[in-house]
Amino acid sequence: MTDAATQTGLEDWDRRAAALDANDPLAGFRDWFDLPEGVIYLDGNSLGPLPKSMPGRLNHVINHEWRTDLIRSWNTAGWIDLPAKVGAKIGELIGAEPGSVIAADSTSTNLFKILSGALSLAPGRTKVISERLNFPTDLYMAEGVIGQLGQGHELVLVDSPDELPGTIDQDTAIVMLTHVNYRTGAMFDMAEVTRQAHEAGALTVWDLAHSAGAVPVDLAGAKADFAIGCGYKFLNGGPGAPAFLYVAPKHQEAFHQPLSGWMGHAAPFAFESHYRPADGVSRALCGTPPVLAMAALDEAMTIWTQVSMADVRAKSAEQCTFFIDVIEETCAGRGLSLLTPRESDQRGSQVSFAATDGGFAMMQCLISHGVIGDFRAPDILRFGITPLYTRYADLLDAARCLANILDSGEWDDPAFHRRAKVT
Amino acid sequence: MTDAATQTGLEDWDRRAAALDANDPLAGFRDWFDLPEGVIYLDGNSLGPLPKSMPGRLNHVINHEWRTDLIRSWNTAGWIDLPAKVGAKIGELIGAEPGSVIAADSTSTNLFKILSGALSLAPGRTKVISERLNFPTDLYMAEGVIGQLGQGHELVLVDSPDELPGTIDQDTAIVMLTHVNYRTGAMFDMAEVTRQAHEAGALTVWDLAHSAGAVPVDLAGAKADFAIGCGYKFLNGGPGAPAFLYVAPKHQEAFHQPLSGWMGHAAPFAFESHYRPADGVSRALCGTPPVLAMAALDEAMTIWTQVSMADVRAKSAEQCTFFIDVIEETCAGRGLSLLTPRESDQRGSQVSFAATDGGFAMMQCLISHGVIGDFRAPDILRFGITPLYTRYADLLDAARCLANILDSGEWDDPAFHRRAKVT
Repeated sequence: MTDAATQTGLEDWDRRAAALDANDPLAGFRDWFDLPEGVIYLDGNSLGPLPKSMPGRLNHVINHEWRTDLIRSWNTAGWIDLPAKVGAKIGELIGAEPGSVIAADSTSTNLFKILSGALSLAPGRTKVISERLNFPTDLYMAEGVIGQLGQGHELVLVDSPDELPGTIDQDTAIVMLTHVNYRTGAMFDMAEVTRQAHEAGALTVWDLAHSAGAVPVDLAGAKADFAIGCGYKFLNGGPGAPAFLYVAPKHQEAFHQPLSGWMGHAAPFAFESHYRPADGVSRALCGTPPVLAMAALDEAMTIWTQVSMADVRAKSAEQCTFFIDVIEETCAGRGLSLLTPRESDQRGSQVSFAATDGGFAMMQCLISHGVIGDFRAPDILRFGITPLYTRYADLLDAARCLANILDSGEWDDPAFHRRAKVT
Repeated sequence: MTDAATQTGLEDWDRRAAALDANDPLAGFRDWFDLPEGVIYLDGNSLGPLPKSMPGRLNHVINHEWRTDLIRSWNTAGWIDLPAKVGAKIGELIGAEPGSVIAADSTSTNLFKILSGALSLAPGRTKVISERLNFPTDLYMAEGVIGQLGQGHELVLVDSPDELPGTIDQDTAIVMLTHVNYRTGAMFDMAEVTRQAHEAGALTVWDLAHSAGAVPVDLAGAKADFAIGCGYKFLNGGPGAPAFLYVAPKHQEAFHQPLSGWMGHAAPFAFESHYRPADGVSRALCGTPPVLAMAALDEAMTIWTQVSMADVRAKSAEQCTFFIDVIEETCAGRGLSLLTPRESDQRGSQVSFAATDGGFAMMQCLISHGVIGDFRAPDILRFGITPLYTRYADLLDAARCLANILDSGEWDDPAFHRRAKVT
């Protein structure tokens, strides 16, 4: 696999990995993906790999639906229904009530719609509460909405989740949090935070970018008000796949969002001169969806209809623990410190280590050996754990590779410090 | 081609069509497209057909860039640069200054950004002027922006272009018009209307959905302030292809828009905690672009780099006139009346007829014979003229088919009245 795989002294780990892989109820799903040779892919939390059925589906969309049926495919191939159809599949995966999720636009754009609509449901309240270390674009979008509204709303950022209960108050309009933190993998108790928010009369907006397909989510059970999320990470919908959004049924009638485009109109083909929102979550649609990308996400979601999320969660928890343990053993004394919670119920499906120095170069060196994780500023080595296609043996090989790189000092080469862009 | 092609009595038209096709400098471009058999496609103003190079390009994106290079393709395949790269190609086609166009999101979403940013550049002015018969989603989006701002702006709609000069005044912030009307094909004099707007101190926002790839556009020469447009019509970028937007260089530094996502940040990978807009038009980007759809649009734009827009315009004008003339001769007395201006310099690249009765069913019947145009409420038969792949002989056959349907009354069958959705 990698040239580090020859390292010795880890026979116990080898035996353990082999036993775990042999007893893995999800092992067969690896064959649903077309994984490149010579790569251990621990970045499925940033871009999921290609499902094997994808080229066939897209070939049909391109050569039959687009080429042959042309404009008729809006009806005959159901293009017009894709946002609701894909949304329904995602909704099922995240515990949403039927008809409360649609696929559309980007995560950022969907957050704009949701925040705009949610703020209008909380008149007189001024605070939007989030975390300082939330995914930056979520904070940028909140700044954008607040600036556009010009009604004196304020983005209040807590430095730690512990500060949330003392910060949520009667002035709080919205608690906007990413369920699983993109840096550390720490996971909020969605039901408990939602309860705290509701107790103060506030609404919740959950970013599920690192949750959908990663951990069981129960939006209805948690009484969440709104959510958004991403199609190209754990869901494997392809680069820049459409995102999704959730509006709880109880809010759908009162929910109004300003990106009031024709796809969200009650009668999109009547060409009326005034906007009249569609019933239900469809009013959160705006413009024409990118059909190629939407069809790809639809195809990727067929895998999720076959999977038990409980099985995924059990393997994810075990794999995260396995990976943490083997890295801490093999890389001891090399300046790595675990950022991800050790308790599996407090984390999502990734493992992050802070590097005291040179994390960017370490990751570039690791990638050059075919072990693909990613780097997040300022010093984080981030590894996505994706049970559908990752074996314990892969995790062990990745850890060996990292240990070799740190032992040899190979990472500390100017070539690995030089690259400009990481995504 | 169609079963109407056997109709006799049009020998002069046959000879004329043959001569025009034989002398067509653009004839070779038809071979760049993979057109379905048995179809005369006059709806390329709604969804352009498949370029022949498209399956190969998308196969590469799917099976090499996504499958093999995975997350690395953001750098190695230049995914991160696609919005600017595609924007540059579109910009060249519409007379934009270098670095003033990006491809992103949907036309509607881009209009929201542009209107928001433009209104903030016109403080104290309250009117957004448009046409009552503008494309509805443009009006819906203006309603959405105005409603969210809550600053007392007003959408003022003129019933006819003649009313514009008398309506644009010192209170006018923005004149927002679709350059070529989606119903009638009537085209504004962009330079003249922009001059009128500027004289009153107002800004212009041009919707180029039916202009880009249809007629020569000279944004810089017309001194236009802002523009938006669509990738899936005349540009042939695929169903729901990403849209584009233009910000004139003189406005770029002061332009701020509220969809302030990470892609428009000055340092998108620095994960800063506050939004800081990128230089130039890139600040109008928001979320992660749909790469499959964006690559398809990029591929479609390679055709446009080979074409003389003057040649396209000359053939489009000739073909529109030809089609109008032959329909008016063959369908005389059947209740069709021309909506499109007769003077070629006052129209875009489509021909529309109002039907006194049953236009929807007429179009459905026509489509059943393989002649694909579209219907627009309340009574419009709309035909897109797309010189890159449409022959004069096709236009003649389409007119024959329509004449046959009207003569025979075949269109007035319940089956053709029944279908619910048309796009």
